[in-house]
Amino acid sequence: MRPGDVIQTKRDRGELSPAQIDAFVRAAARLDGSGWEKYHLTALLMAIYLNGMTPAETAHLTRAMADSGKRLDLAELGGSKVDKHSTGGVGDKTSLVLGPLAAACGVFVPMMSGRGLGHSGGTLDKLESIPGFNVNLTEEQVIDTLRALKMALFGQTPEVAPADKTLYALRDVTATVESIPLITASILSKKLSEGIGGLVMDVKTGRGAFMKTHSQSRALADSLVKVGTANGLCMCALITAMDTPLGRYVGNSLEVIESIETLKGNGPSDLTELSVILAARMVELAGIAPRAEAEGKVREALASGAGLDVFRRSIEQQGGDPRVIDDYSHLPHTSSTVLVTTDRTGYVTTMDAEKVGIAAHRLGGGRSRAEDGIDHAVGVICRAKPGERVRPGDTIFEVHYRDGASLVNAMPLLASAFEIGDAPPAPQPLIVEELS
Amino acid sequence: MRPGDVIQTKRDRGELSPAQIDAFVRAAARLDGSGWEKYHLTALLMAIYLNGMTPAETAHLTRAMADSGKRLDLAELGGSKVDKHSTGGVGDKTSLVLGPLAAACGVFVPMMSGRGLGHSGGTLDKLESIPGFNVNLTEEQVIDTLRALKMALFGQTPEVAPADKTLYALRDVTATVESIPLITASILSKKLSEGIGGLVMDVKTGRGAFMKTHSQSRALADSLVKVGTANGLCMCALITAMDTPLGRYVGNSLEVIESIETLKGNGPSDLTELSVILAARMVELAGIAPRAEAEGKVREALASGAGLDVFRRSIEQQGGDPRVIDDYSHLPHTSSTVLVTTDRTGYVTTMDAEKVGIAAHRLGGGRSRAEDGIDHAVGVICRAKPGERVRPGDTIFEVHYRDGASLVNAMPLLASAFEIGDAPPAPQPLIVEELS
Repeated sequence: MRPGDVIQTKRDRGELSPAQIDAFVRAAARLDGSGWEKYHLTALLMAIYLNGMTPAETAHLTRAMADSGKRLDLAELGGSKVDKHSTGGVGDKTSLVLGPLAAACGVFVPMMSGRGLGHSGGTLDKLESIPGFNVNLTEEQVIDTLRALKMALFGQTPEVAPADKTLYALRDVTATVESIPLITASILSKKLSEGIGGLVMDVKTGRGAFMKTHSQSRALADSLVKVGTANGLCMCALITAMDTPLGRYVGNSLEVIESIETLKGNGPSDLTELSVILAARMVELAGIAPRAEAEGKVREALASGAGLDVFRRSIEQQGGDPRVIDDYSHLPHTSSTVLVTTDRTGYVTTMDAEKVGIAAHRLGGGRSRAEDGIDHAVGVICRAKPGERVRPGDTIFEVHYRDGASLVNAMPLLASAFEIGDAPPAPQPLIVEELS
Repeated sequence: MRPGDVIQTKRDRGELSPAQIDAFVRAAARLDGSGWEKYHLTALLMAIYLNGMTPAETAHLTRAMADSGKRLDLAELGGSKVDKHSTGGVGDKTSLVLGPLAAACGVFVPMMSGRGLGHSGGTLDKLESIPGFNVNLTEEQVIDTLRALKMALFGQTPEVAPADKTLYALRDVTATVESIPLITASILSKKLSEGIGGLVMDVKTGRGAFMKTHSQSRALADSLVKVGTANGLCMCALITAMDTPLGRYVGNSLEVIESIETLKGNGPSDLTELSVILAARMVELAGIAPRAEAEGKVREALASGAGLDVFRRSIEQQGGDPRVIDDYSHLPHTSSTVLVTTDRTGYVTTMDAEKVGIAAHRLGGGRSRAEDGIDHAVGVICRAKPGERVRPGDTIFEVHYRDGASLVNAMPLLASAFEIGDAPPAPQPLIVEELS
């Protein structure tokens, strides 16, 4: 099969055959003299970007990408394995809250996560702010951890979906990232590799999200549900608001603190509610309880401290210092903070999640390239959020910074990241829509 | 300027700036660590293929590609330099006829030609069937030859439009050949490198042409005229029929014979007429005579033998054996011929130029890859053409072949390349449309 013929099929808006998709994915997994070069892959990626893919094509692409690498085999554990995946937001630490809650309800949660890139954070980075926490688990360690706790928090090994690595790197430099079929296949190929039977998708929408509009987010959610289902996953997708940071804490160890507070029952309402609903969907997809009862079970696991207990044991099991649960001074922190205040009386009307995320990134909490290091301690606390009343001198942002140069880069963004008005904004729903 | 940003502009149907086009062309001319790799080029080529280019973008691309290499400077010659270029057909040997005719009328004709690829022939291959004929001229030799004869027939050096070489090679393997802006830039960048002031385009249309439909051919002709004009060329474009081979002889030395016969006044009417009209347009674009008189001047050069004389002197000047003019046995020829006959009475209604071209290719007269060698002697003579009456036993094709294996490959194509009907077909115009 000549690469040019495959490219021509998609160029002319045709449907790629399974054999054509397999050839493309095999080439991406290992450029091995099969006649495909990177310059064939990028021409095809652009044709896919511009001409799209049918759900059937995307489903096959996803499966082929998962099969290009190692897939976890969790059959020996019995029970239902369900994960949650978010398309990325600012202050989104729901994984750290809902993972323990779902596990406490009896769901196996093999949570393979990524690192942050750009203005959105990554679960692995947050976990690694806990001293000693080891996210690099072998397959055996994942299975042992799941058997012990029903939850394992770990990073992707190079053996997982190698085709995705090649394709993502090429998409990143050829303006072919924002393609719904390619995003779908990238996300779901990695999730299929976890050996799960169900997946709850949190598709973020709004200013701080990858998808800025409801219609884009809906199209992505729809694609994820269709393609996940076609690959044998029980799927549900929530489209949730990401105009404003989720919760109040943005930054790696700051988000661990807020997650622990939430598991203690002291969390902000948006983070608590979203975590509970997502965990309840996981319980439902696992077949443990029908929708009407699942939410109650999760709230019980929260109120009883069972979720907090799973997180504490998870930290112990994966080599971390469990004292962080009760004493946040064991987490990395900066010695310097500065406040962004307002000189007006009124209500916070908007808070731009993307600007807050970029500010946290500029403080040293994010990476621009995959190989960059990060500072776990820095970040931003949103002391006032939309709808809240403020008076002159009130703090909007509490900025945790390490050095003055990064602060200078971050401050102008924060100064322009909020608006004060005379009236409170109309309340916006957190969960915009649900698909399954 | 990051490649991804340039690609994104075209992906989103934006207009590329001159600086963006320059960066792309510079990268194509020499992949030199400027940050562009072949996989960036092919993503952009696919975006151009699918989203197109404005005439202004195509004009700048053309100029940048010409400027990526060496451009002939013919200023010292004075006078007007005009060339003709064809998009490629079967049996199309007009260059060998009209070049001498236009030169005999006083036009400088610096004819830089290519080799055949696929089913259509190339002027250089035809010339090289003349023993000793040297098409590899230096710039000085081109100028000396033009000064002596007003015509020089030569091949493209590696210094001409190097960006086109990279881009063409990549387009060929990524299904991005059939793009009007990219075809326009490829053709005209090389023509601009000739140092000409005027160009007559012969855009072939029909079964044996690259563009199969009138609307495609018209779009290409329109693009060529606009973009050539924007680059300072006096342009005219004829859309001419290529359903049937032009003339009767297809194959390299066979086409030289038919060209010489035409210059002697014994040519087939289609070849003679098209050569005269194209040469007349060259005379007109050169400013030597207005349209009403140009055709008469060319017919005079044909009738007087002045054109034939230029061709004879051209062969001498470029190292060839001028005896071929009067004795075709000095040209390569095969010892074996076979006839394809008909068993019907009636009229030839169709003759498929593409099939005849592929048959000649399979006989060894064409190349599949640029580095292949060819057999100058093989080919096909069309003894009957559409509109002509035939009886059982009459010859349709006279096949000049070297070995039986190639004949076996070619014969089924020839057997299916013509149809006989009870009535003659409606006459088709040779010149379908003219743009300027």
